[in-house]
Amino acid sequence: MTTPTLIRNGVDTEQVYGTLDALKAQPELARFVFRATNRWMDGTHSRTTIQGFWGAGQEDSSRDEPFEVDASEPPILFGHNEAPNPAEFVLHALAGCLTLTIVNVAAARKVTLTEVSSTLEGVLDARGATGLDDAYRNGFERINVGFTLKGEAPAEKLQEIVERAKARSVVFDIISNPVPVDVYAEVG
Amino acid sequence: MTTPTLIRNGVDTEQVYGTLDALKAQPELARFVFRATNRWMDGTHSRTTIQGFWGAGQEDSSRDEPFEVDASEPPILFGHNEAPNPAEFVLHALAGCLTLTIVNVAAARKVTLTEVSSTLEGVLDARGATGLDDAYRNGFERINVGFTLKGEAPAEKLQEIVERAKARSVVFDIISNPVPVDVYAEVG
Repeated sequence: MTTPTLIRNGVDTEQVYGTLDALKAQPELARFVFRATNRWMDGTHSRTTIQGFWGAGQEDSSRDEPFEVDASEPPILFGHNEAPNPAEFVLHALAGCLTLTIVNVAAARKVTLTEVSSTLEGVLDARGATGLDDAYRNGFERINVGFTLKGEAPAEKLQEIVERAKARSVVFDIISNPVPVDVYAEVG
Repeated sequence: MTTPTLIRNGVDTEQVYGTLDALKAQPELARFVFRATNRWMDGTHSRTTIQGFWGAGQEDSSRDEPFEVDASEPPILFGHNEAPNPAEFVLHALAGCLTLTIVNVAAARKVTLTEVSSTLEGVLDARGATGLDDAYRNGFERINVGFTLKGEAPAEKLQEIVERAKARSVVFDIISNPVPVDVYAEVG
């Protein structure tokens, strides 16, 4: 007799618990190194290639083809709208991370979700990044995230799921707290 | 007689200086509000739509069509590789921002670039985000960025351009320093 697979919110909860057990038994499997390579195209336009990463004790080979994602700027910021701009990609990364963390937490807590949608705003004053006034920082002064969450659970339980996701989201932490970034350049 | 347009590295430097003059004269034009909306698809997979933003004193209308960008996870992280994962999008945002800032700074300093490429690594221990061990943070412990920069200038000047870009990059600041993130959820 085989154990039936339990899929909730599109997440295989047996796989999730199996992975957690494996991490408890072999903590060295928890190390992940994600990677991206980027190449300047022209003006504000560049292209990032994403494929392999290190995780769970080995080099991942699940992606047959690399992902390619562009970034650029709108005309007011000297580009030609070839793609969203980098600050908008920060909002995308945050939305995607909070959303999948909400979905995973709900699955673990046996809550079936029917809708997760969000709107995000990032506010900045360009006097910072342009170097016109050091009283302003370069990046976002603040980010506002508004979720709409619907599911088969009381409102209080759905709110708890959002709180837990916020407390465990990889990208929420990266944006809310400092990450050391080392930049090295080979020039010539 | 018209003034000739000066394009360097694909950047219209006359436009850049015109914008800086306008910001000096009317600092309220410097306020930008970028936006993204996201919708959960299934499992770890979600889709972000990016189109309008507020900037330079008005709602931008330069994008006829919205950009759509997906995020998900590889199988080891419970997804199906529908798209890069949110942590990889953080690396993409950082690469795109540092690169276009390098290009803009070089244009302003009259340096013609011939190559800007980069490789990025973000390291994390999944014992944090999984809640297995609070000694580990959820997000990246550190990010390493390696640039290759080629252009028509001495090595020292190219290094200075990278340093200036690091000091002025919107996304470098967002990741290196804390950004307040307010998360609100309407549930039901």
